[in-house]
Amino acid sequence: MFSSFGEHLKISLFGESHGSAIGVVLDGLKPGILLDLENIHRELEKRRPVDTLSTARKEQDFFQIVSGYWNGYTTGTPLCIMILNEDTKSSDYDPFLLRPSHADYTAYLKYQGFQDYRGGGHFSGRITAALVCAGAICKQILENKGIKIATHIKQIHQVMDDDFSIQIDELEQQIQELNCSSFAVLSKDSLKEMQEEIKKAKNMQDSVGGVLETIVLHLEGGIGEPFFSSIESVLSSLLFSIPAVKGVEFGLGFQFANLYGSEANDSFMYQDGIKTKTNHNGGINGGISNGMPILFKTVIKPTPTIGKLQETIDMKTNQEITMKGKGRHDPCIVHRARVVVDSVTAIGLVELLCSRYGYMWM
Amino acid sequence: MFSSFGEHLKISLFGESHGSAIGVVLDGLKPGILLDLENIHRELEKRRPVDTLSTARKEQDFFQIVSGYWNGYTTGTPLCIMILNEDTKSSDYDPFLLRPSHADYTAYLKYQGFQDYRGGGHFSGRITAALVCAGAICKQILENKGIKIATHIKQIHQVMDDDFSIQIDELEQQIQELNCSSFAVLSKDSLKEMQEEIKKAKNMQDSVGGVLETIVLHLEGGIGEPFFSSIESVLSSLLFSIPAVKGVEFGLGFQFANLYGSEANDSFMYQDGIKTKTNHNGGINGGISNGMPILFKTVIKPTPTIGKLQETIDMKTNQEITMKGKGRHDPCIVHRARVVVDSVTAIGLVELLCSRYGYMWM
Amino acid sequence: MFSSFGEHLKISLFGESHGSAIGVVLDGLKPGILLDLENIHRELEKRRPVDTLSTARKEQDFFQIVSGYWNGYTTGTPLCIMILNEDTKSSDYDPFLLRPSHADYTAYLKYQGFQDYRGGGHFSGRITAALVCAGAICKQILENKGIKIATHIKQIHQVMDDDFSIQIDELEQQIQELNCSSFAVLSKDSLKEMQEEIKKAKNMQDSVGGVLETIVLHLEGGIGEPFFSSIESVLSSLLFSIPAVKGVEFGLGFQFANLYGSEANDSFMYQDGIKTKTNHNGGINGGISNGMPILFKTVIKPTPTIGKLQETIDMKTNQEITMKGKGRHDPCIVHRARVVVDSVTAIGLVELLCSRYGYMWM
Amino acid sequence: MFSSFGEHLKISLFGESHGSAIGVVLDGLKPGILLDLENIHRELEKRRPVDTLSTARKEQDFFQIVSGYWNGYTTGTPLCIMILNEDTKSSDYDPFLLRPSHADYTAYLKYQGFQDYRGGGHFSGRITAALVCAGAICKQILENKGIKIATHIKQIHQVMDDDFSIQIDELEQQIQELNCSSFAVLSKDSLKEMQEEIKKAKNMQDSVGGVLETIVLHLEGGIGEPFFSSIESVLSSLLFSIPAVKGVEFGLGFQFANLYGSEANDSFMYQDGIKTKTNHNGGINGGISNGMPILFKTVIKPTPTIGKLQETIDMKTNQEITMKGKGRHDPCIVHRARVVVDSVTAIGLVELLCSRYGYMWM
Repeated sequence: MFSSFGEHLKISLFGESHGSAIGVVLDGLKPGILLDLENIHRELEKRRPVDTLSTARKEQDFFQIVSGYWNGYTTGTPLCIMILNEDTKSSDYDPFLLRPSHADYTAYLKYQGFQDYRGGGHFSGRITAALVCAGAICKQILENKGIKIATHIKQIHQVMDDDFSIQIDELEQQIQELNCSSFAVLSKDSLKEMQEEIKKAKNMQDSVGGVLETIVLHLEGGIGEPFFSSIESVLSSLLFSIPAVKGVEFGLGFQFANLYGSEANDSFMYQDGIKTKTNHNGGINGGISNGMPILFKTVIKPTPTIGKLQETIDMKTNQEITMKGKGRHDPCIVHRARVVVDSVTAIGLVELLCSRYGYMWM
Repeated sequence: MFSSFGEHLKISLFGESHGSAIGVVLDGLKPGILLDLENIHRELEKRRPVDTLSTARKEQDFFQIVSGYWNGYTTGTPLCIMILNEDTKSSDYDPFLLRPSHADYTAYLKYQGFQDYRGGGHFSGRITAALVCAGAICKQILENKGIKIATHIKQIHQVMDDDFSIQIDELEQQIQELNCSSFAVLSKDSLKEMQEEIKKAKNMQDSVGGVLETIVLHLEGGIGEPFFSSIESVLSSLLFSIPAVKGVEFGLGFQFANLYGSEANDSFMYQDGIKTKTNHNGGINGGISNGMPILFKTVIKPTPTIGKLQETIDMKTNQEITMKGKGRHDPCIVHRARVVVDSVTAIGLVELLCSRYGYMWM
Repeated sequence: MFSSFGEHLKISLFGESHGSAIGVVLDGLKPGILLDLENIHRELEKRRPVDTLSTARKEQDFFQIVSGYWNGYTTGTPLCIMILNEDTKSSDYDPFLLRPSHADYTAYLKYQGFQDYRGGGHFSGRITAALVCAGAICKQILENKGIKIATHIKQIHQVMDDDFSIQIDELEQQIQELNCSSFAVLSKDSLKEMQEEIKKAKNMQDSVGGVLETIVLHLEGGIGEPFFSSIESVLSSLLFSIPAVKGVEFGLGFQFANLYGSEANDSFMYQDGIKTKTNHNGGINGGISNGMPILFKTVIKPTPTIGKLQETIDMKTNQEITMKGKGRHDPCIVHRARVVVDSVTAIGLVELLCSRYGYMWM
Repeated sequence: MFSSFGEHLKISLFGESHGSAIGVVLDGLKPGILLDLENIHRELEKRRPVDTLSTARKEQDFFQIVSGYWNGYTTGTPLCIMILNEDTKSSDYDPFLLRPSHADYTAYLKYQGFQDYRGGGHFSGRITAALVCAGAICKQILENKGIKIATHIKQIHQVMDDDFSIQIDELEQQIQELNCSSFAVLSKDSLKEMQEEIKKAKNMQDSVGGVLETIVLHLEGGIGEPFFSSIESVLSSLLFSIPAVKGVEFGLGFQFANLYGSEANDSFMYQDGIKTKTNHNGGINGGISNGMPILFKTVIKPTPTIGKLQETIDMKTNQEITMKGKGRHDPCIVHRARVVVDSVTAIGLVELLCSRYGYMWM
């Protein structure tokens, strides 16, 4: 609990936005996993501010592996990765000025004034860079087993992207392209329109949110547990640990409420094995994978920090005042959140697979 | 993990639908909690088939407390509650006939043919009766602290219920009424229409799903943890462990995707303490309670078992065949799932409060 | 924690000595393990009062498997075993009369008067019958893999038993005989003398303790984890959860303090694989098995309840008074504790093996 | 499990002897604990080579707090402490030369050749420096509550130290002096003789072991849990995670085997509260503290690395050869292990207290 996850592969996050470093310990990796450090770097790049759409924090996320890694391979002992914090501007933050819809006030309630509030502290989106490091390692483990994960931006404000293809060849192609893209959409038209939406919000000193859709391909059936470790339980608990995520749905999700059972059910068929004709349940029945692709959607709320005037209070006086967002902030973080969603998905799946097969499975 | 939950109050579920009993062990209760057994019984009644809307399994859920309870009070040692299974008809189930959108096939993959498939086994909705027992105890603990939980049926197929009142007095009244109701809606008109929808589905040999909306009142601010034990993470992992739940959203949830930050943010104000003018974030920022009501929605898919003809395969032959649902089944379980949602919410909140204050807090 | 153990195979104990039943839930068993129920029964018999050496509680420990077991096999879902309590005499217990060296007073401090004190409640040695059920299943799992566990009574008061043979054939024979014996010693002479010691103590209205020595044969090397899940850590935490255990040592244990390194070290040799010439470290280096037999000793203190007059206080008045042990009590429990030591050893080893290989390893 | 401990205060160790750094993450600290960094430094000094008795690794253990600490106080978010490795000589180690009674071979079996074997890697005693950092923080937390921990060297080879005083004033004095001492003994005569023993072993190119005895004063009654989280279970699992520990006993420990119940039992008396006349049980009954001092002993085996010729095998050829210990090594580590024993004791007690009272108790 707290900032630790997992019983089989244990993840322990640490760090604050403006402290000396952020990092993560992974305890429970198999010895002898060949790590692709370039790939970890590329994953981190996906989370970084890339262009005019994003904030000005310039630093590259140079990571270093402090332990558990030697001569190119995991050793099997706890692997600690750290990223030093460099380009920090702490003067921008006033702890008594409560930024609406941020964690300033709840952090104050929980930590009673002792929290490192600079840059959002441990609540900063920056901490997700450590999650991306852990996730990149987990994705490599899964890819070695043929399991693929990809996420596209399904929606930015009013603009929608296409759906994943139901043709397996085309789908494999989509997954590969998404994982090389810095702004992950299936349709080029959507890409343009979405970026227009973001720029428009930026020009208005405002922000926009959106929806991410994730697919997991080639996960064997029978993975997941009934009840508290259902695939949905494990993945949702990880997804909701990403700042700004406020909803998660699997398969048809909230659309199920509008359907009759006869419309919603996925009929079985036999086609090189037992499959379902539709995939309304997102590849999961009773919390357990059925061999079809895992499909889920995650909603990212609009970035709370905006340039527009907002009403809030000053905790020193309890007076209502107006404020504008200071510090660096993005008009949209949906495209940056994509790799974090991929990362926690990979972490969750490795956990579930290890509960069944042990860490030697990796 | 598996069928166990919690690090502070540990919940361990057991039982199959057609075995001798189902039950749950609660490890970590404070000694000296006066339990209201009548209340546990009333909570179980909410989950039971109540009327013409529901299935024919007649048995009352008589529970017995096997341990951890003496002279009216919890002893502080593990409390085991059991419910005997009585009215079972096991001849209705053929393990090779895969019921669409049920866990038959995934259970087969996971348990490799050794699962007790009768009545859905450990995947049966019946197991949630044990969750309701655990939840009833947790709700009593919370109510002793002034924390209230209530859930209403927000939607059945196309029929919507009213929203919770934003007037605190009226809201308290609504919560009280919901918790005495067997079909929990805020609007009497909705009740009638929803029941019509269910009957209509029943007459069509079909089923319907819906959406439940839950409120938690008077939870202090500062509860929850960043990342993996955010309130959203803990509650969603529990909610997704309820069979048929396929989506969970907090506050505005998926609506956030359509809003600008300036529309979505909750401005702060001072009114007998620091509050927010709106509650789009459902009482949670950065995973931690802010003192406003916790608000979330849970979608329940249509009952997969229906009388209508469906396509499936026979695993003995891998032939595609058609089948009709046999055994007892409900055209709708949304109204019955309500108390299960309340229950897991209570379990999750007790866990989070105990992590901060220890079991002696109870 | 509390009365729950394990992250891979989760064990949750419940029950009080004079409540309706005691039991245990095992969550994380592989589906399809053929269980030998007769064997569970025999293991329970080893823990029971057998003869003139032991107490008068007459009941046989009839267990029933409530869940997770069907048609002779584990189903893979949580397995709950229960033993009903029948032959209870609750009038013997006065909660205000603190029995020296019992848990009466500490239970009072911890549970603040709400504990079920009858017969020792949750602290009763009787609860270990549930551990024996769980252990019997784990021992069957290990035996299917060729891993054998046996414990002999190394010492009762001043009488010592022989050591385990270092000839593998003879050792296998010893293990087999110990596991069929109700009073487990290697030397027939020791048996006689030990039983004399116990009778002598009984006649003096007194009690005696002793030392158990355990061997684990054919555990592969490489099992266990550095630091907190070293084999020694996992086994000792389980052994110290047995009431009356006050010391645990591996290999030479406390004798190491008297030796030079050159005397203590185990030299390596090659003989059908890498072995050590001596086994002073009890088969464990750095917390991890080295392929030699695991060896450890456990001290059992004399039964605290004795017929002799003892000084104590009456908590109602805080007056010092004298008391004699009432209720049923044994002059020695070392021979009965033997199977409990075997049981928790098996539980610990299954946990460690599953962390490496997953539950599908079973 | 693995290198992680705790459910309430979570400790995650990382690092190898010759990697870039070692460290530990503490997740679950209360916000607002004023930390005494000088004290952490002094605790680390106790573990360091101090004099002619110890090895030549010269570096001071300069720690840095990477996160969770700001302006002198804990923030309440995960606290990561690191110590950089500087003075390493990796050329001394040959992975195929199995050092008797070291973890070389078991690490090879477990990590299959991928372990960082330099300097013992993750198995090095050096990693305990990270435990000392975590323990120093826990000791500060306990001392703020009036709970004191001290350990003395009870035995080095054949030389014994005095016992702890049973006069409370004198005992408090002893504890204070032990905690300021670099070679912790109660009797000055013993100190001299013990150091002679160590020098003698050193001159013989050999090594010696010994016994540490620990006392915990002013721990309230009622702490600890029955069964798996008994004080004995929690402390022993931590103590056995210290390299070289092979035995742990509480109170009279193995001496209990030689006593009658009437000799072993601790009679109750009333003297400013309920106390026991003797403390044979080491302050613990039924796994739970009774308010008397907690007392236990830990045996440390002789350092396995010695200058004398030893028999072993070369794994490249499986030939038996002789070797002498290379690299830096101590003729005795008992005096250095003292602070590690104190540290894990503090970690265990904070865990148990937090399970009862939550992290806000700190």
